[in-house]
Order: sequence, then C-alpha cells, then structure tokens
Amino acid sequence: MLCAGAIRSKNTMNILLQTVMDAAVSAIAFYLLGYGFAYGVGPHPNGFIGNALFGLSRWTSNNYSPEKGVGIDSGEGWQSWFFQWAFAATATTIPAGAVAERLNFNAYLIYSFFISAFVYPVVAHWVWSAEGWLGYGRSTAYSRLFGSGMIDFAGSGVVHMTGGLAGLAGCVLLGPRMGRFDSTGKPIEMPGHSATLVVLGTVLLWFGWYGFNPGSQLIINYVPNAAVVGRAAATTTLSGAAGCLSCLLTAFMRHRAWDLVAGCNGALVGFVAVTAGAHVLEPWAAILVGFTGAWVFDAVCALFLKLRIDDPLSAAPMHAFGGAWGVIFVGLLAKRDYVCQSYGKDCTVPGPGAVPHGLFYGGGGRLLASQVIGVITIFAWVYGLMTGLFALLRAVKLLRISPEDEHAGLDVSKHGGSAYNYDHGLGKPAKAPTPLEEKDLSPASAPVTSSNSPSAGSV
Amino acid sequence: MLCAGAIRSKNTMNILLQTVMDAAVSAIAFYLLGYGFAYGVGPHPNGFIGNALFGLSRWTSNNYSPEKGVGIDSGEGWQSWFFQWAFAATATTIPAGAVAERLNFNAYLIYSFFISAFVYPVVAHWVWSAEGWLGYGRSTAYSRLFGSGMIDFAGSGVVHMTGGLAGLAGCVLLGPRMGRFDSTGKPIEMPGHSATLVVLGTVLLWFGWYGFNPGSQLIINYVPNAAVVGRAAATTTLSGAAGCLSCLLTAFMRHRAWDLVAGCNGALVGFVAVTAGAHVLEPWAAILVGFTGAWVFDAVCALFLKLRIDDPLSAAPMHAFGGAWGVIFVGLLAKRDYVCQSYGKDCTVPGPGAVPHGLFYGGGGRLLASQVIGVITIFAWVYGLMTGLFALLRAVKLLRISPEDEHAGLDVSKHGGSAYNYDHGLGKPAKAPTPLEEKDLSPASAPVTSSNSPSAGSV
Amino acid sequence: MLCAGAIRSKNTMNILLQTVMDAAVSAIAFYLLGYGFAYGVGPHPNGFIGNALFGLSRWTSNNYSPEKGVGIDSGEGWQSWFFQWAFAATATTIPAGAVAERLNFNAYLIYSFFISAFVYPVVAHWVWSAEGWLGYGRSTAYSRLFGSGMIDFAGSGVVHMTGGLAGLAGCVLLGPRMGRFDSTGKPIEMPGHSATLVVLGTVLLWFGWYGFNPGSQLIINYVPNAAVVGRAAATTTLSGAAGCLSCLLTAFMRHRAWDLVAGCNGALVGFVAVTAGAHVLEPWAAILVGFTGAWVFDAVCALFLKLRIDDPLSAAPMHAFGGAWGVIFVGLLAKRDYVCQSYGKDCTVPGPGAVPHGLFYGGGGRLLASQVIGVITIFAWVYGLMTGLFALLRAVKLLRISPEDEHAGLDVSKHGGSAYNYDHGLGKPAKAPTPLEEKDLSPASAPVTSSNSPSAGSV
Repeated sequence: MLCAGAIRSKNTMNILLQTVMDAAVSAIAFYLLGYGFAYGVGPHPNGFIGNALFGLSRWTSNNYSPEKGVGIDSGEGWQSWFFQWAFAATATTIPAGAVAERLNFNAYLIYSFFISAFVYPVVAHWVWSAEGWLGYGRSTAYSRLFGSGMIDFAGSGVVHMTGGLAGLAGCVLLGPRMGRFDSTGKPIEMPGHSATLVVLGTVLLWFGWYGFNPGSQLIINYVPNAAVVGRAAATTTLSGAAGCLSCLLTAFMRHRAWDLVAGCNGALVGFVAVTAGAHVLEPWAAILVGFTGAWVFDAVCALFLKLRIDDPLSAAPMHAFGGAWGVIFVGLLAKRDYVCQSYGKDCTVPGPGAVPHGLFYGGGGRLLASQVIGVITIFAWVYGLMTGLFALLRAVKLLRISPEDEHAGLDVSKHGGSAYNYDHGLGKPAKAPTPLEEKDLSPASAPVTSSNSPSAGSV
Repeated sequence: MLCAGAIRSKNTMNILLQTVMDAAVSAIAFYLLGYGFAYGVGPHPNGFIGNALFGLSRWTSNNYSPEKGVGIDSGEGWQSWFFQWAFAATATTIPAGAVAERLNFNAYLIYSFFISAFVYPVVAHWVWSAEGWLGYGRSTAYSRLFGSGMIDFAGSGVVHMTGGLAGLAGCVLLGPRMGRFDSTGKPIEMPGHSATLVVLGTVLLWFGWYGFNPGSQLIINYVPNAAVVGRAAATTTLSGAAGCLSCLLTAFMRHRAWDLVAGCNGALVGFVAVTAGAHVLEPWAAILVGFTGAWVFDAVCALFLKLRIDDPLSAAPMHAFGGAWGVIFVGLLAKRDYVCQSYGKDCTVPGPGAVPHGLFYGGGGRLLASQVIGVITIFAWVYGLMTGLFALLRAVKLLRISPEDEHAGLDVSKHGGSAYNYDHGLGKPAKAPTPLEEKDLSPASAPVTSSNSPSAGSV
Repeated sequence: MLCAGAIRSKNTMNILLQTVMDAAVSAIAFYLLGYGFAYGVGPHPNGFIGNALFGLSRWTSNNYSPEKGVGIDSGEGWQSWFFQWAFAATATTIPAGAVAERLNFNAYLIYSFFISAFVYPVVAHWVWSAEGWLGYGRSTAYSRLFGSGMIDFAGSGVVHMTGGLAGLAGCVLLGPRMGRFDSTGKPIEMPGHSATLVVLGTVLLWFGWYGFNPGSQLIINYVPNAAVVGRAAATTTLSGAAGCLSCLLTAFMRHRAWDLVAGCNGALVGFVAVTAGAHVLEPWAAILVGFTGAWVFDAVCALFLKLRIDDPLSAAPMHAFGGAWGVIFVGLLAKRDYVCQSYGKDCTVPGPGAVPHGLFYGGGGRLLASQVIGVITIFAWVYGLMTGLFALLRAVKLLRISPEDEHAGLDVSKHGGSAYNYDHGLGKPAKAPTPLEEKDLSPASAPVTSSNSPSAGSV
C-alpha cells in the first residue's frame, strides 16, 4: 500500500539531495576552472573565453582587497566569485529535472562538473565579462555585436537557457522513461512526481529570485543603483504573478478547474522570462512577458509530447524556451531611459544608434538582432556540447540505468521491495530516497518499502 | 487507512499553494490599484485615500530614480512598491486559515483581490502615508488625530488586524464546518489540520519577521537608523520568545503536559503583538506584550468556541485580536526617547504635548486614545466591508462549497476515493492537494486515495 | 504498518519544534544573563566573564544609539545583541541531536537555559570580547595568550565545540538508547531517524551559514571589510563542498554506492570546520580543512561505536570534533596577509612576532599554541560543567524518560498506540510529534497511530 505523503517527502528529499550535490560539484568545478574561463583576464584577453584566475590564483596571492580587485572584470573580487558561483550552481541544477528517473548517477556527476566547469562559464564570458563578444556594451574597449550586444540582466539566456538546453539534450538522448508512451506513441500519464518539487520550488524561488534579479545589478560594473535594484524586484514580482495567473487560466479553460500546480509552473516561467530584462522593462511589459511566457511554456510542453520527448519536470520548456522568449522580448520592449540608467549610457545623445534599445520604443533593430543571435548561439553551443557529452556517455554505457533497475524502480511493488537493495538504491539519483527510506524503516515496516518504491523509482 | 504523514504533507502543500496564489493575485491587484490607493499623491491629496500612481503610472514615465522618487510619499520609489506589496500580500494571506475547508475557490480569488486592491491599501493610507488622518505625525503639514496619531511600526493594526478581521468576517458568514459542533452546540474536536502549518509557519516567520519589523524603519520617512532597526530585531525576538513560553505554560497548567504546538502559536502571537511597537518598546516591555498577548489569544479562542465561530487555524484570534492588543499596548508603554529617535522628534522640548508617548511614561493619554480609535476604526472598516463582500458572495451562491463536496471531503473514505475526481478536487483549495495526491499515485495505490481523502477534504 | 513519509514529516516537525523552543528559551536567557556575561563591561572588567548589561540594562536607559553604543565591546548595540543571540541559539540547538529519544523534556528546558545563560556566554567572553583572555589581539589594552590569542571567526570553537560537547556530555551520562547495543556491545543499526534532518538541515544551513560566516566580520571591531566578507563566503562554500565530496567518496569506497546522506553530513562538517578560519584561509586551504574534517568526523563516529556512545544524530562528532579540527587548522594555515586585513594589523612590521599567523606560513608556533590551548580549555569548561549539570539532573531523576515510555516509544507498534496517550506524548520531545499526529488523525485512522508511533518514539 502506498503512502502519498511518502512520495512527496521523497520528492522533496531527492530534490534537496540533488541540490546539495550540485552545489558541491559546481563549487569545486567553478573554483578550479569555471570562474577562470568566465572572468579571468589573462595576457591575451579574447571575446570567447577567459584565461586566468583558475583556482582564484591571482587573488589569493595579492588581490584580496576590493580596491585591487577592481582590475578584474567583476569588481568585487571574492564576492564576485561567490555570486557568480550561485549562478553556475543554478545552471547546473536545472537539467536534473529533465533526466530524472533514468540517468546513471555517475553520468550525473560528470555532466554537473562539465556544465559548471566549461559549458556555462564560456556563455557567461560571452555575455557578462567586459571583453565578451556578445554582451551589451558597458565598455567601449571591445567591439560589440552590431555595436549593441545582448542584454541579459540575470541570466534568462546565460543561466536558464544553458541549464534547460543541457536538460533537453539529456532527455533526447536518454529517450523516454519505460512506459511513458505506448506502442502507438500515445503518451501515458505518469504524473505527480513533480507536484511537491514544483510547489516547494516555487515558494523558495519566489523569494530566492530576489537574490538573483535585484542582486544582479552588482554584476554590472557601475555603482549599484537603488532604482535599478528596486525596479528589478518589482518587475520580477509582476512577471511571476502574471505567469501564474496565465497558466491558471489556460488550465481552467482546458479542465474547467483550478489547477494550482499549473499556477506554480506559470510563476516559475514568469520569473525565468523576466530575468533577462528585469532592469529595463516597464512593469506592464514585465506582466506581458510573464503572461505570454506561460503560453510559450504550454506550447512547448504540447510539442514535446508530440515529439515523444519525455521531460518529467518540464525543465526544458520552462528554462530553455521560457528563457529564450525572455531574451528576445528585451529586444522588443527594453526602455531607453532604463537602459541608460542601468548601463550608464548618456541618454541625451539623440538617435537609436547611441543607445540601442527596444524595437517598439524606436530603438532600432540592432538590439533585437543581438538578442536573437544570442539565443541561437547559446542554443548551438550548449545543445551541441551536451549532446556530444551524453552521446559519449551512452557509448561507454554510462548514460542510462539498466532496464531491470528502471523496471524495478517503476513496478517494484509487484516484485517486492526486498529485491531492491541498498546499493542499487544508492546507485542512481532516481532511487536515492529508497535507502533513506529503508534506513527509516523499522523491521516491522518492510512491506511499506515495496509499496513506496514505485514512487522511489519515479521520483 | 490514513497516513498521518500525508496529512502534513498536504497541509504544507496547501499552504504553499495558497501563498503562491495570494502572492500572484495581490501583486497584480496592488500594482493596478492598491499602491495608488495607499500612497498615490494626486492633485487633491486627502487623509482617507490615495489617488494617483495606479499601475505605477507616474514612475514609469519619468520617476525611476530615487532622487526623483523622493517627491512621492514613500521615498524609495520602486523599492517602496515592492516592500509595500510584501505587506499587502501578508494581509491577503492571513484570512485563508480562517475560511479553510469550506470556502469556494472563486470566492477565494475574489476576496484576495478585494483586500489587496482596496481594503488594505486604504488602511495603509490612513496610518502610513504622509497625509493619512490616523498616522503618527512625521509631517506637520497634516493635522493629526489628537495632535498625536497612531503608532504602528510594521502593521499589528494595518496588516494583521486587517487580515485577521477579514478572516473573522469570512468564517462568521460561512458558519462552522459540517460536524464541527454537535446539535447541542458542543464542539467536536477536528484537530490537527494546523499542526504543520503552525510549526512550519513559526520557523519561517521567526526569521521572516526580521524582514518586516527591522525593515519597516524604511517606511518611516527618515534616514534608516541602525539603532531603531537593531532594537526592532531584539524586541521582536524577545516578544516571540515570551509568547511561546506563555502559551507553553498555560497549556502545561491545563494538560500537565508540554504542548509544543501551543508554544508555536504563542510565538506567532508574540510576533504579531510586538509588531506595532517594536521600535519604541523597551525589551522588558516587548516581553510583557508577548506574554500577555498569548493570554488574549487563548481567551479569544475560548470565546470563539462558546460563540460557535469555527476558525480552523485561529487566524482571527491571533492576528486580529493579538494585533489589536499590540496596538493598544503601544499607547501604554511607548518610551519617549525611542519615539523621538524613531520619528525624528526633538526630545528637548518639555511636556507630553511635544512628543505624545506611552501613558505609563507620563506621555499623556493622547497617544493611547489614538491607538484605541485606530483599533476601532480598522475594525469597523475591515469587518464591515468584508462582511458585505462575503454576504454578496453568499447571495450569488459563490461563498461555500456544496454540502456534497464538503461531506465528500470529510468522509470520502466511507464513499471511496474513486468518486472523487480530478476536476472536483481542483475546484476548491480545500481539495487542492487531492489531485496532486492522485497524480502522485501509481495505479497500484488507488485504495490510498480514499483513505487519504478525509484529510484532503479537511485541509 | 509504518509510513516512511510520516517518519520524515515527524523528524522534520520535531527538529522544527525544538528549534522554536531553543530560540525562545535562549532569547530569554541571553537577554537576562547571557549577553551580560559575554559582553558586559562593568566596573571591574576581567578576562574571564562579563559583568554588566544584564537585561540590556544600560542601553535601555540611555545607550540606544550606535554612537553611544560604541563604548560597548560589541559596537552595534542592539544589532550586536541580536546577532550574538543567533550564535547562542545555535549553540543551544546543537545538543538536541545527541540526547534525542531518551531525554526528559524538563531536563531539555533546563540545559537549554543553562547553556545560553552561562556556559556559552563565558566562552564567548574569552574569545570574542575585547577583554577576553583567549581572543586574538584586536586590542592591546589586554595581554593576550602568548601575545597572540586564538582566532575563531564565527565559532568553530565558541559555538560548535560548545554545543557539540554539551551534547556529548549528555549522551554519555544518558547512556545509549534501549536496544542500541546488544549484550555483547555489538551495535544494532537504528538508522534513518536523521535522514530528513540531515538533508533539510544541510540545505537550510548551506544558505544560513552565509549569515554567520560572512556576517561575522561584524563581530570584529573594525569597519566591515567587503573583501573579508566575500572571502568568508567563498571559503565557506568550498569547504562545505569538499566535505560533502569527501564523505561521499569514503562512503563509496565502503559500500561501492553513492550515499547522498553521507554527502550531506560531510557538507555540514565542512561548514563547521571552516567556520574558525573562513576569513584567513586560502580557498585551497578551505577545501583541505573541509576534506580532512570529514575524515575526523568518520573516525570519531567509528570510535563512538566502539565506546558504545550513542549519539543519534552524530552531533558531537560533527560539531565538537569537526569544530576542534577547524580551530587547530587555523594555527597551521592562517595566511599573514589575511590576518592583517581581518584584524587591522600592520603587515609591514617584519617577523612572526608582529602578526602571529599560521605555522606553515612561517608565523611561528604561538598562534597554533593558542588554538590548542583554546580547544583544551573549551573542552574542559563545557564538558565539565555540562557533565555536572546532567549528573545533577540524573540524581534528581529528571534526566531520562522512564523505560516504559522509552520502550513504548520504540516498540509501541507491538503494544498498540492507544496505550500511548496525549499527555505522555507531550511529556518529552522524543514524543512531541505524536500528539500532533493524533491531532491530525480523524477517528477512522486510529490504527495508524500505533503504526506510526515507533518513529514518534525514535525521533
């Protein structure tokens, strides 16, 4: 017999465990390599990749004070590393939802390292470092794409597209979970695994996001501006709210019922979408990007079902496509005044050329073009590299858990949990909770294990 | 068979889901109307209601910088909107506990919007805006009540009384849950639904409160003062602790046992009660207000049982009456030095007239009178309006879920969960967890649904 | 039949409830006595204990402003009290894990008060107050141990050793839980109680720690330094990550499986260990202290099993011994530049005598000697006092719950939960969740109580 409470506890446990793992792996990877690739300014700076500061080498010798730290692209030195790591850890955590329930745990460790050590940092260098080829001009020392560059305030593209596309590459190469689609390709509902994750995540993120979006003003190399930080907090709130209500309405029209979980998904999509332009969008524009972002999310989810792509937590539709929509949206509605304020431009210079901004504000097409190029390049870079990695893992048989394990995970209730041993359980994140659970059980409770395992397998 | 763990998970799910909904609805409502009613200074400013800044209209044109923002009552511009929204969202969330398990979800959406768009903002305007008729004088441009005005630091009256009274109006018009009282009116225990909410809420709030109380110095139109912020943190801590121990002792004397949940309720009451005077109370006074506030809470809970008022989570006793006690207490023990420091008064001017403060400090009765008037007015305004709204909803049959659904919710275990379908479940917050749960279940687990549903219905 | 989900919920409930209780008791105790013993500068200041500011007496009269507050050792006045209380509450919470499942709740209240009112404050005075005999010299007015003194940034020794040693004293005097060791002394697995606590705790602490370590720069009597705060954030991250991976690898070698819970324990050990030197360690040194700290933790856990010491949550190995290792490590690898920066020393003065720092950096042995003396003194003070207290409690029969209750708690499933009444349940924290649970149950679910109780008893 199955205890619904346990499923939830286990989902929660699992997401928490993965968060801890991702944080640990990404911290080491970002310290050794990632930060250097992203922000290290070596002897031959270039727009593609950083080439110094590996292991924080320079600071640790003589560069610990903010004053001396200024030389480095990301002003605050140590604080910069910490803040940037938080972004890297976020990008690293996102794919876990897409490959859940069938990825080998060793593969999980490998891709986590790879993303936070190389894939993400290079994108961050492009967009957020002073010499990156893709970022919006806050320095004139480097030529910018179309003399404009891409605006991405807190990572709709850099963080969320990267994480979401890595997840997409993973679940495409993994293929769907066993029994997700019938022989005719008709999807079979395997719902519920995401409920707690979504809700818990939404509430945590609703607050956590204020650390990222408003905090991101610190990334920009100017004196943090209270107005920009405040506006980011306001636009983030409104976009998340709009996304929540948008998904809620869509679901209501579909089911004639209020699906609060859909509302949570919508809120997350709204946060993801507004992240690129939280500092340059009007409040009404933030509401618009969140509301429409939820449609993009719904559409992509439907498309995935058609294509038989099995993304258990909809990580790719949310982060990759919601993020892409947010990036492009900035090209349409970035307000001139706000762009000047955020990037220290002089708004008195006439003509769109001086300060490329949103197309609908008469800012010309150069910003929009940069945003689109940015989306395409990030897609190519991340999806290409991650597909390569996952293909390699598959080649060496490290990608997917054995059918037996997956089958056991999904139907162990029929086979008896006792066949489901500790080490197996620990062998892959999909089953991570099982050992906890077994450890939690007094002998008297053995039967529960079997009855709980379906959810263990389907977390 | 029922899994206690599941109830808790579900309670938690539900409160989290409601928090998300409230945050979304209140954000849109507060953006469109609420903030304007609260802080908008239009052509004809008045003490009753604000009349500009709807949809943040003025800022979005030209008022994005703090410098330019100063013209607006709430100095920080964007940050002000965000901070004020957090208060509105809090007031909007409070009633959910009082109307739980029987309110129609449509009614839930409607009252959430109404509170955050109109009811709460008007109260905030009275007390916290520069031109409000009720607030403590930080501007001499407007005549104050008794030349003093009401002191409410972070919303014992503005936020908590508003939320708690809205909940009271709701559960009075809704009437008790089915089976809450027997034919003779004797209450039948329907406990446990609140356990997790209370504990989880306590821990989150214990920390969250520091965002409100110390942060609230920002509301006051002077340079934030480290001493005031620090004192608010200390008094908040001590009052919560005193309330916790007070309820714990009361429960011990009643049951000869340590009821930790009572302790949590007490801590929350302590926080609510000290919120009005966190900046002007001595630490020992903060302990006193928390300790006695717990008695008020216990007394009102007992009274409610007598009056057959069914407030599942005791939201009204805690927020409405605990808050009222906190507001009045300030009139008794607000310390002169601290009032001067907090509101930038000149303490060298002799006589209570110069700086109205606590009665027991020889501050005269004008502050106390203002506090009492404030409590009465807020009670009349909120309880009156919300009673009207809920009566209207009842008239159009939108207020309460059908007896069948409520009955099903409470006893579905007797009727079989299969009769309990997805859309129904989603139709009202009381059942919101059910679909999640059903989604969580693998076919093998069908029987559980029925066994879990009682709690689903009784969340 | 036992519901694994319920165990977790209950563990979580219980830890949350204890956190609330500890926060309440410690707040009152620290207000009345603790802060005075720690930081009060009376007529006759001495290195052993503070002797003023009881009940915040001085401030509340005339000392509310930061300017006036500067006279007090801990600059920020009110904020200082609040911040210091957070440390005291932490030290008070730690022992709960070591004495779980068998301590009488009255004893729990008593030791919580004793630690936060006296035991912890005295240690804090030694190390963190200006006149303490043990602290690293930031004032020349008082002679320092070996002219150096002990460096403890955010409490590896002051907070974690104190809490962990108090827990050790408790579980040594309590003796193991019934059935923890068989007649031959062979340990019998009683696992699982800690799973949720560990994971949830890890995630919360992973973020919470940033409040302590970076925040602790405020304790040091100089202008907070962005570089120090930033470095503390970075080193804390890296040490936690290293500890996590270290435990994960050790467990993998032992079981050939990934034990994510071990990883969480490792992360916590890493945080504890780096807390003493977060501001003066190189990133690579932070990784080293976390990685090796995890070994210390594993070794001590194994030793405890040999010695038949039953510490259900390994609170002592983690906090007492992990903390001690962190303190000593600072004596080995505290970097001169960082010490100067953190404590405002002049690094241009040559010779180790000027600025005692890490042995391996040629800083001489005086810092290392101070760290060792500090560890020994704290061990003697805390373990001695707490052993005395627990012995006293045992003498008056207040220490341990009755064998019947403990037996019932552990095996009630065999005896039927109905024998397990409300007041009993509330009588001790080990059973605290039970009443919640009973309150949660609708009549229909009575049988569950019995099946859940084993975990209730074993929380």
